[in-house]
Amino acid sequence: MSDLFAPRAALQRARRHAGPLSGDEWRDVVTAFTNGTFTDAQMAAWLMARVMHGITVDESVALTEAMVNSGSVLEHPSGGGPVVDKHSTGGVADTTTLIIAPLVASVGLVLAKLSGGSLGHTGGTLDKLASIPGMRTDLDPKTFVQQLATVGVAIAAATTELAPADRRLYALRDHIELVDDTALIAASIMSKKLATGATHLVLDVKLGQASILGDDTLTRTLATQCIAIGAAHGRQVTAVLSDMNQPLGPAIGNALEVRAAIDVLSQRSFGRLGELSVLLATELLCSTGVEPAQANVTVMEALTSGDALERFRQLVVAQGGDPHVVDDPTRVLELKPPTALWTPEASGRVVAIDTKRLGVLARDLAGPNGDLKAGLELTLTLGMQANQVVIAIHTSDSGRVGPAKQVLHDAIVIGDAEVTPGPLVQEIIR
Amino acid sequence: MSDLFAPRAALQRARRHAGPLSGDEWRDVVTAFTNGTFTDAQMAAWLMARVMHGITVDESVALTEAMVNSGSVLEHPSGGGPVVDKHSTGGVADTTTLIIAPLVASVGLVLAKLSGGSLGHTGGTLDKLASIPGMRTDLDPKTFVQQLATVGVAIAAATTELAPADRRLYALRDHIELVDDTALIAASIMSKKLATGATHLVLDVKLGQASILGDDTLTRTLATQCIAIGAAHGRQVTAVLSDMNQPLGPAIGNALEVRAAIDVLSQRSFGRLGELSVLLATELLCSTGVEPAQANVTVMEALTSGDALERFRQLVVAQGGDPHVVDDPTRVLELKPPTALWTPEASGRVVAIDTKRLGVLARDLAGPNGDLKAGLELTLTLGMQANQVVIAIHTSDSGRVGPAKQVLHDAIVIGDAEVTPGPLVQEIIR
Repeated sequence: MSDLFAPRAALQRARRHAGPLSGDEWRDVVTAFTNGTFTDAQMAAWLMARVMHGITVDESVALTEAMVNSGSVLEHPSGGGPVVDKHSTGGVADTTTLIIAPLVASVGLVLAKLSGGSLGHTGGTLDKLASIPGMRTDLDPKTFVQQLATVGVAIAAATTELAPADRRLYALRDHIELVDDTALIAASIMSKKLATGATHLVLDVKLGQASILGDDTLTRTLATQCIAIGAAHGRQVTAVLSDMNQPLGPAIGNALEVRAAIDVLSQRSFGRLGELSVLLATELLCSTGVEPAQANVTVMEALTSGDALERFRQLVVAQGGDPHVVDDPTRVLELKPPTALWTPEASGRVVAIDTKRLGVLARDLAGPNGDLKAGLELTLTLGMQANQVVIAIHTSDSGRVGPAKQVLHDAIVIGDAEVTPGPLVQEIIR
Repeated sequence: MSDLFAPRAALQRARRHAGPLSGDEWRDVVTAFTNGTFTDAQMAAWLMARVMHGITVDESVALTEAMVNSGSVLEHPSGGGPVVDKHSTGGVADTTTLIIAPLVASVGLVLAKLSGGSLGHTGGTLDKLASIPGMRTDLDPKTFVQQLATVGVAIAAATTELAPADRRLYALRDHIELVDDTALIAASIMSKKLATGATHLVLDVKLGQASILGDDTLTRTLATQCIAIGAAHGRQVTAVLSDMNQPLGPAIGNALEVRAAIDVLSQRSFGRLGELSVLLATELLCSTGVEPAQANVTVMEALTSGDALERFRQLVVAQGGDPHVVDDPTRVLELKPPTALWTPEASGRVVAIDTKRLGVLARDLAGPNGDLKAGLELTLTLGMQANQVVIAIHTSDSGRVGPAKQVLHDAIVIGDAEVTPGPLVQEIIR
């Protein structure tokens, strides 16, 4: 922190200066916020003023750096090659992380994934892993890095030592309804990735109805801001803009999504979930310098040979989980037959899906205690004939079935219009 | 508060809606802020967002009303005629309140003055009164209103029951460097005046170097906003835009200013201080319906007849002060001869005065314990020959004399330029 840091001067500049503020000013403010000399109210005023002026990429870069410096950075062995990571802005029925992580590890990359909790209508990787009996995600940094060396992949809860300013800033942004500014989101995402030591990152940025921003133009801005922040810190970031106008995979819910991931890794299913997972894994491999065509072949071979599935088993074992989940997920995850099935009464096609609402419904089916086995299994895509749609409802409380069916009736729109679903991936920004 | 009040929705609107927000929204937010369900950080974000969009007069009106409703309103006897008040945005060597208050009471008006503390470089009426032995300003509301009935004038400290939201909001604005927004200042001033029950108000709005905003365009905006807020609440507000490019009267400092006020009331002096006091008192009388020419005659008669001085004595007696202060202020206020005198070394004229700095110097001469007898006596006007300038320094600590002389040397600029001081009153907005 500069000796001259003065909250009054900083706040005056934040409000009055329409152009960008300096990196030093951002660093001073974040440092003072971290050590408590810049209060929540002052930070709220500062953030609101800067957001209303429009935060530039240079400002985001400085903010990211300041948040990284607020805590410790995960140390990887020197000369150990790239450390890769995958981040999603949040999808529904989206369990690509559980597929990609072992997949890229099985082709020789090191994937270090530190995850936060679930946000809003989208699921969280840690909750999914918690549905595997014995599985631990509270790895200390040393254990985490050791596992990367032996298994090539580790997925754990982000510790409070990494980018603590980001945590506090996120809580404040949530409190003052400032979570949707793309520059602040980009800085938040990238600060955690930089603190994890990732050198190559693929971002799965969701477009469409159930995307976090709900606005494709803003979402593209977010993607380019993340890439720019990464570049300023010498990291390779690839953004894949993928469709979230319908659920990605065949299941929403923690244990159900683990089973769906294992089904893809075991080649019992593929679908849009498999397609996007392979594409993201391929992009990660490409970003480390492998030719695209070769990268795709390598990834597909890892999947079809069973190497990826085997690596998933090693991941589970390393983190204390029951390895038999790989062979018989239904039994090990203690998944039961559906509590109820639902199909549309109307005839026609699926013309629209309120995907966000399906995400919320799956969470509601889990009840206040968060039953990890609750959720939805979906035979559902845009344009499908209504009589082919089947939604399996999983809940331990049969009282939730009736309201759930009403939500499904509202969220899945049947009509006569011709429907041409957009492509799964709209654009890749490298 | 509306049943539908939700901080999230309020903050989203505050940030995104460029047009004015509704009165209900402002009232909901202030109510929630007062009862603690809208936090300091949320209020900081709200205020910053609205200030950056530009707060409209309608919004200020609603904010004022909400702040008044956050506490109690002083009850005056029904059918008791107008209750008048005078407010200044803060001047240096400006003790007009101590002259106007007894003056308008002596012509039959009721003046109810509740005062806050001093702000920044300008003096506070309560501190001045405190220099009169025995004088109390901690009147409870009942005593205050009773004194208005018997003496026609009372000057007391604002209690925490009146517009408490304004107090909290001011503290927050100060904390986040948002004290200079005219709409928020206008709402703050007017909320206190409305809570005191004033029906007619004269505002002495200072222009020039030592004005609080330091920008004459903004200052005029502030004046018109106060008038509009008053009008919306059925109050008659007159704004007198007066010059603050030089000290108004012959003294800066608490006891020194009391003596200066008594000197005007006793007709031992008049000058710019007397001139502005008479003008403000005349405007107050006019605002209650008296013809301007008649009002001026009435006010001047009250001054020259000694009625105003006598009313000042009654005010002092009613509030427990030593009435002999009126007859021999120097003795009762225990004022001593100056500690030191200063005159400019250069020859020429006074071409500029850093009036703000003189205000700060007088405060500094009082030291950390706030010696009420410290300050400056000034034989000083813009354009005066340098060899006629005399500044008398009053301090109990002779170590402060040297630095004070250096400040005077810097603050009083002597040169050869022709100087034409602006008029004392630039404009009156009714």
